[in-house]
Amino acid sequence: MKYVYSFGDGKADGKTDMKNLLGGKGANLAEMNHLGIPVPPGFTLTTDVCTHYYNHNLIFPEELETQVVEALKNIETIMDSGFGDIENPLLVSVRSGARQSMPGMMETVLNVGLTTTTIPGLIEKTGNSRFVYDAYRRLIMMYADVVMEKTTGIKLADGQGIRQKMERIIDTFKKENRLKDDTDLSAEQWKEISESFKAEIKNNLGSEFPDNPRDQLWGGIKAVFQSWNGNRAISYRRIENIPDEWGTAVNIQAMVFGNMGKNSATGVAFTRNPATGENHFYGEWLPNAQGEDVVAGLRTPNPLNEDTKTVDTQSLSSLESSMSALYSQLIEIRTNLEAHYSDMQDIEFTIQDGRLWMLQTRVGKRNGAAAIKMAVDMFNEGLIDKKTALLRVKPEQLDELLHPVMDTESEQNATILATGLPAGPGSATGRLVFTADDAEAWHGRGEQVILLREETSPEDVHGMHVAEAILTAKGGMTSHAALVARGWGKCCIVGCSDLHINLEQKEVQIGETVLKEGDWISMNGTTGKIYGGQLKLIPANPETHNEYKHLMAWADDARKLKIRTNAETPADAKQAIQFGAEGIGLCRTEHMFFDDTRIMAMRKMILAENPKERRSAVMELLPYQKNDFKGIFKAMKGFPVTIRLLDPPLHEFMTLTEPQIHDLANHVNLDKSEVEKRIANLHELNPMLGHRGCRLGIVYPEITEMQARAILEAATELTAEGVAVLPEIMIPLVGTATEFIHQETIVRDVAKKVMKEKGITLDYLVGTMIELPRACLTADEIAEKAEFFSFGTNDLTQTTYGFSRDDIGSFLPSYLDNKILSQDPFQSLDVKGVGKLLSMAVESGRKVNSNLKIGICGEHGGDPASIHFCKHNGLDYVSCSPFRVPIARLAAAQAELQIKASKV
Amino acid sequence: MKYVYSFGDGKADGKTDMKNLLGGKGANLAEMNHLGIPVPPGFTLTTDVCTHYYNHNLIFPEELETQVVEALKNIETIMDSGFGDIENPLLVSVRSGARQSMPGMMETVLNVGLTTTTIPGLIEKTGNSRFVYDAYRRLIMMYADVVMEKTTGIKLADGQGIRQKMERIIDTFKKENRLKDDTDLSAEQWKEISESFKAEIKNNLGSEFPDNPRDQLWGGIKAVFQSWNGNRAISYRRIENIPDEWGTAVNIQAMVFGNMGKNSATGVAFTRNPATGENHFYGEWLPNAQGEDVVAGLRTPNPLNEDTKTVDTQSLSSLESSMSALYSQLIEIRTNLEAHYSDMQDIEFTIQDGRLWMLQTRVGKRNGAAAIKMAVDMFNEGLIDKKTALLRVKPEQLDELLHPVMDTESEQNATILATGLPAGPGSATGRLVFTADDAEAWHGRGEQVILLREETSPEDVHGMHVAEAILTAKGGMTSHAALVARGWGKCCIVGCSDLHINLEQKEVQIGETVLKEGDWISMNGTTGKIYGGQLKLIPANPETHNEYKHLMAWADDARKLKIRTNAETPADAKQAIQFGAEGIGLCRTEHMFFDDTRIMAMRKMILAENPKERRSAVMELLPYQKNDFKGIFKAMKGFPVTIRLLDPPLHEFMTLTEPQIHDLANHVNLDKSEVEKRIANLHELNPMLGHRGCRLGIVYPEITEMQARAILEAATELTAEGVAVLPEIMIPLVGTATEFIHQETIVRDVAKKVMKEKGITLDYLVGTMIELPRACLTADEIAEKAEFFSFGTNDLTQTTYGFSRDDIGSFLPSYLDNKILSQDPFQSLDVKGVGKLLSMAVESGRKVNSNLKIGICGEHGGDPASIHFCKHNGLDYVSCSPFRVPIARLAAAQAELQIKASKV
Repeated sequence: MKYVYSFGDGKADGKTDMKNLLGGKGANLAEMNHLGIPVPPGFTLTTDVCTHYYNHNLIFPEELETQVVEALKNIETIMDSGFGDIENPLLVSVRSGARQSMPGMMETVLNVGLTTTTIPGLIEKTGNSRFVYDAYRRLIMMYADVVMEKTTGIKLADGQGIRQKMERIIDTFKKENRLKDDTDLSAEQWKEISESFKAEIKNNLGSEFPDNPRDQLWGGIKAVFQSWNGNRAISYRRIENIPDEWGTAVNIQAMVFGNMGKNSATGVAFTRNPATGENHFYGEWLPNAQGEDVVAGLRTPNPLNEDTKTVDTQSLSSLESSMSALYSQLIEIRTNLEAHYSDMQDIEFTIQDGRLWMLQTRVGKRNGAAAIKMAVDMFNEGLIDKKTALLRVKPEQLDELLHPVMDTESEQNATILATGLPAGPGSATGRLVFTADDAEAWHGRGEQVILLREETSPEDVHGMHVAEAILTAKGGMTSHAALVARGWGKCCIVGCSDLHINLEQKEVQIGETVLKEGDWISMNGTTGKIYGGQLKLIPANPETHNEYKHLMAWADDARKLKIRTNAETPADAKQAIQFGAEGIGLCRTEHMFFDDTRIMAMRKMILAENPKERRSAVMELLPYQKNDFKGIFKAMKGFPVTIRLLDPPLHEFMTLTEPQIHDLANHVNLDKSEVEKRIANLHELNPMLGHRGCRLGIVYPEITEMQARAILEAATELTAEGVAVLPEIMIPLVGTATEFIHQETIVRDVAKKVMKEKGITLDYLVGTMIELPRACLTADEIAEKAEFFSFGTNDLTQTTYGFSRDDIGSFLPSYLDNKILSQDPFQSLDVKGVGKLLSMAVESGRKVNSNLKIGICGEHGGDPASIHFCKHNGLDYVSCSPFRVPIARLAAAQAELQIKASKV
Repeated sequence: MKYVYSFGDGKADGKTDMKNLLGGKGANLAEMNHLGIPVPPGFTLTTDVCTHYYNHNLIFPEELETQVVEALKNIETIMDSGFGDIENPLLVSVRSGARQSMPGMMETVLNVGLTTTTIPGLIEKTGNSRFVYDAYRRLIMMYADVVMEKTTGIKLADGQGIRQKMERIIDTFKKENRLKDDTDLSAEQWKEISESFKAEIKNNLGSEFPDNPRDQLWGGIKAVFQSWNGNRAISYRRIENIPDEWGTAVNIQAMVFGNMGKNSATGVAFTRNPATGENHFYGEWLPNAQGEDVVAGLRTPNPLNEDTKTVDTQSLSSLESSMSALYSQLIEIRTNLEAHYSDMQDIEFTIQDGRLWMLQTRVGKRNGAAAIKMAVDMFNEGLIDKKTALLRVKPEQLDELLHPVMDTESEQNATILATGLPAGPGSATGRLVFTADDAEAWHGRGEQVILLREETSPEDVHGMHVAEAILTAKGGMTSHAALVARGWGKCCIVGCSDLHINLEQKEVQIGETVLKEGDWISMNGTTGKIYGGQLKLIPANPETHNEYKHLMAWADDARKLKIRTNAETPADAKQAIQFGAEGIGLCRTEHMFFDDTRIMAMRKMILAENPKERRSAVMELLPYQKNDFKGIFKAMKGFPVTIRLLDPPLHEFMTLTEPQIHDLANHVNLDKSEVEKRIANLHELNPMLGHRGCRLGIVYPEITEMQARAILEAATELTAEGVAVLPEIMIPLVGTATEFIHQETIVRDVAKKVMKEKGITLDYLVGTMIELPRACLTADEIAEKAEFFSFGTNDLTQTTYGFSRDDIGSFLPSYLDNKILSQDPFQSLDVKGVGKLLSMAVESGRKVNSNLKIGICGEHGGDPASIHFCKHNGLDYVSCSPFRVPIARLAAAQAELQIKASKV
């Protein structure tokens, strides 16, 4: 079995499409050889080695040693030097390289091969003893940290790492010798420090720093492979959904040095600007430095060229002006790479003694705006076709254009107070308030507020609405706060269990910090991080972004899946239309009962003693709701509007304080104790599985009747005024065909009456939300009568898994850590379970009713992977919150292209 | 289309197997003609007429009138009289007759054809004017009530019915004329009363009593058809699961009179004793009376024969002695009917002027003991084969032999205080107590108590155990109280919302009645009725019932499905073994944490700050639980024992009073406020979907480890002692294969260690409870590792429907009334939804693991229809509470026979 792939001198065993085996870095190093680009020779240990290593109790395959020795000889030949050779020693780097880039997440060891026996030879060869001892001390520091400490799992008693201790040695040495910078140290001094390092290592870790090139090499290889399972790497994979089984490759490469003097340099560059997408060669370099110096940020790097100089870097010399010939060579390589890879590249180079070496090329990360601009520009330049352009932007990246984001620098310098679940996108800053009423009051005084609650309920909505952002200590990604915030495109962080709220004192304890009402905090809703103080934000304005408009137009051309929105007010509806929504997929009507003037009628209804009283109470709501629906219909300009009839359990309308109970009792002419008894009777042990959804409309048909009438009167009256309307009335939480028929009959009877009364014929649909397993299992029966299905995948996920969204917080983290779940099923649709029910329902529903309109209106409607699944299963539309509409449009286009491609 | 089927004079259009069309009564009247049994001629309007009537806005089919006229002519010919004929008038009865007998649930009109014009002729013909006017007033009373009032839906202002008003007229008349019995009234007096009746009708209902035979007939027919949808009939159908679509037939038959003088009589009889099953002709008769007199119970009827005379009826003359020739004819008919129908018949007869007429024969209702005796006797007599005998006893009827039942007479005379859901079988009587502690205290003093609670929790178990019966105001058929009570075979009524408990005063208000602690009440757990006072009970003792033992032995021969039991103590296990259980299908382990000495360890575990503390707390429980398991294993004598690992959410262990919190805080050395905070943190919005089941064992693997060790140490130690054991360890609430593998790994690791420690190899299985839709949908993945599946259909029903068992009470009644559900899905398995998931899981599970053992352990395991479904789907066993085991054994045998028959 071939475990080692060599490259160098324009030849290579591997190539760019072997990323799975060689990792991204290894494959591209090989490819650059094929492109005639100068690369220090080296070889790659494949990901198979990693897999073998982990499957065999950290033992390497037998054949590996021989293959490494062979490959090392190839480097020696090309570099005309010897690994461990006393006169002309070869030094190598040992670097990780996974299939997908995991920057900074794994370990590196440089300068391997430098020992007390090879040092003199290298000094002789380079004539630069300071450089050699500097390299030596760097090797010792890295090796001690990465190989001798991390790999062995040794924990030092004082809790400090060996690297820290060595850094302290340097600091002490500098202080004692009154030296300021590392560059001030001489060869002799570095030598002295190296000896101190070795003593410190022996002292703390109990073993000697190896003075043998072979030991150094294999120690480095082991350490890099083992860093695949380091904490940082594991967390990163979890976030990025990278499978643990992939493993990493390891690259061993001849060292080249950018710190060998004035004719040496090192730099990193992007073939285009990764922050703006502009077609400018963009990068940073340092003369006489090693790559790690650029990355570490200890020295301010110079700009690569004149064009990209800023006010801050005006005075620094560019590579373009300092080393113009080499810069020209680099420009050529840039063009070569972009033409070859058809994408923006992130490159690393080193100039050793006037000679340019490329150390890495990979597809460059970019922010959302840049991704869009590059995709559109590259299409215009003829580098890529439209399909590729569409597939090149991650749908989530559009988010950055739709919400204010935090200024990166401001965020990097701020202290993280706590981290919660990133429930609502964008960033925000504001002054802390602890109740919805306070939020309104402070906002009324012109203050920018952030509302902090244990968890939110529908009664907090007025405060949530005026707040810049919402922060809760409890709840998950689909808690009330999260749902409402996402609907508004509002920054929101939930389930932040580090917050200990003292509502009476209006203060919150976060670790050691105590914040009071009025204190400033800032939140990054995309990462879930919470900062103290007022951080700088960058506002959003996608419509001014020309390339965005192009890309979205292409997406709309490419997709067939319709995109609707979840909206319940005219303002939301208008916002969604602006974002390209083609209808409302879910208009919840709960809020239409909650308004101060209305909730009294609702409460009267709940307390009514007989159907007549109940009817009279509920009918008080008719004019209000009719008006609400008119507003929404108008905003939607004839697009379909799916209205869900009342869904939540009645006790949600009855969370009352003592005085409120008193008032209510007076109002309805009942004893206070009687009202209390009725409220207590509404209590449910599991309200999610209780008296809600269509179960309300069946027990209290008056509610269904009133809502149907409000919708249909609004629709007919607008039709009479010449406004186009298309209502789709949705019965919630149906589990049996009989439930649907019961409610449908009421709706159709009302419709007939209203149309007769108004003398107007109206197109309208009656359908149901499919959100229970039983609805999926009996979809054929339901589809005989229903005109549309809308999958409520939030509730469907709850019942399929038996997970309460509100309570999942106590075990979800453990489930993710233990790999019981690979991701939160409320965020991305569970294909195997929930997805199977969905597929069954689509198939059996369409079998009896080929005209059945099918959509999805759960939170998954805005998740690209779930959108792909919906498209694959033949849904007609997905519906998501207004701010996810552009994301869904692009994701739908991508799904269309990918499914088409997979069928060819 | 033929809507009318005639019969009479030994000829008939119909026959016995046309019950669906002619109803049971009509088909049997026809059949009796074929058997040469004398039956008054008549005709049957088919159930098709009923269906047509309801599908066409209460309009009859066009052809009906002609066919009725034709059929009427046939009666006139046979009876040699004319309908409406002035000289020789024919009178007819109009009676209902559904496919399945619904005794007393629908209406009847007799003496139709009697008008002011036909009365003189009938007097002339019979020479008995008193008889004629008595018949006339009976017609008026019935007709006014059944046709003129009920059919029209008229409600009289004073809330009284027209029949009540007419009865008051008779009463007043009797008082005024100092007459005691109806028999004391003369022809003239009945005539006078008839006139008062007609005035009263006109006065109250606004229309005249029809004086026209044709109007009377059609009014009667309509009224009988309409009574199919009367309240009584609907409720009865709901209870007996009779489909609404069946409809009823209507029988019109020539009237014969048992009240025409001394040579006339009427009676009802059973071909065998329906209370004991003894092969004795058993019945009652009245000389000179109409059938309704026997049924109404105003006159004490005479015994049919000498053999069946009792102390009370010793002095009354039997038909055998009074009319011996006719009695002989009846005996002949009895033999004829039993031989023909091979079953006990319930017959009605009338003797008119010395001539015997049979009015009805149908399969007779019988109680459980009688059903068993008749089935076994008839097999021994060669009347039926063994298969028929097995199918003849309803499995539920065995219940009567297994629990004490209420003395019928005692119950009939008692006042019903309230009615709840019949959650636990049998009957009980005892003194009221309001807390579990009181129950224990009173019981300790030798008192018989009934425990009344709002609802019960695991902390009430000690009180529930000593109580004769349990009564709760809340909860459904699968609430805690119901589950526990059924497990013990204990009488239990739940969800009785009429109970208003005042716990402080220890009293309960039921309507107007207030009962205090210590007051006697009695409960019928089979009907849900609650009575004041101490009623008489009849104890149960099935083992003394010879035929029961025969039948059960035949059932065990016939079935292949294994029957296990749900039991969690050695006592339950022994009881179940006695009832024929072949293993434990569900041994819950919750109670093993609840005992006073143990719960402290559990609470310490819950409050532990780190895994080490947690482990040490939970390990305190090991010796106790090991001991528990030993007891159960021993009781089960080597039968398999399926043990479910801890399932309920942790907050169930933390319902604490203030002082208990204080003690606990001291015990674990924490601040009281800290303990309160932790308890509050355990609160869940939907605990059913929360942190429970295997989610506990995954987050706290120590629990799984401890339980696995307790089970396996118990099993190995007993094995060493030579006791046979077969543990099956069940992981609860699995939704993903990863969950199962996580827990299975812990169990198998412990097993390896324990077996090594004890030096014993042990057979054991690790499997899972399938109780979430997702488990069914991914059963193939789970079955790759699991050795058995046990369907937890309680929770599976909850999640499939999205119904919380605890909260369903607020809408289930409305769902049954509105026919949204045909039955409570927690009682009988929902075949279309839950059943589909179950079938899918069985199929996909067995596909990857053909050895997979599959059973069911939800409440449905004791429901005959569900057992049939399980057998049909290839399950290996069902598991139910000990007292349901015999029922399940018989149901399993019946399922086997029926499925075999359907395949032929």
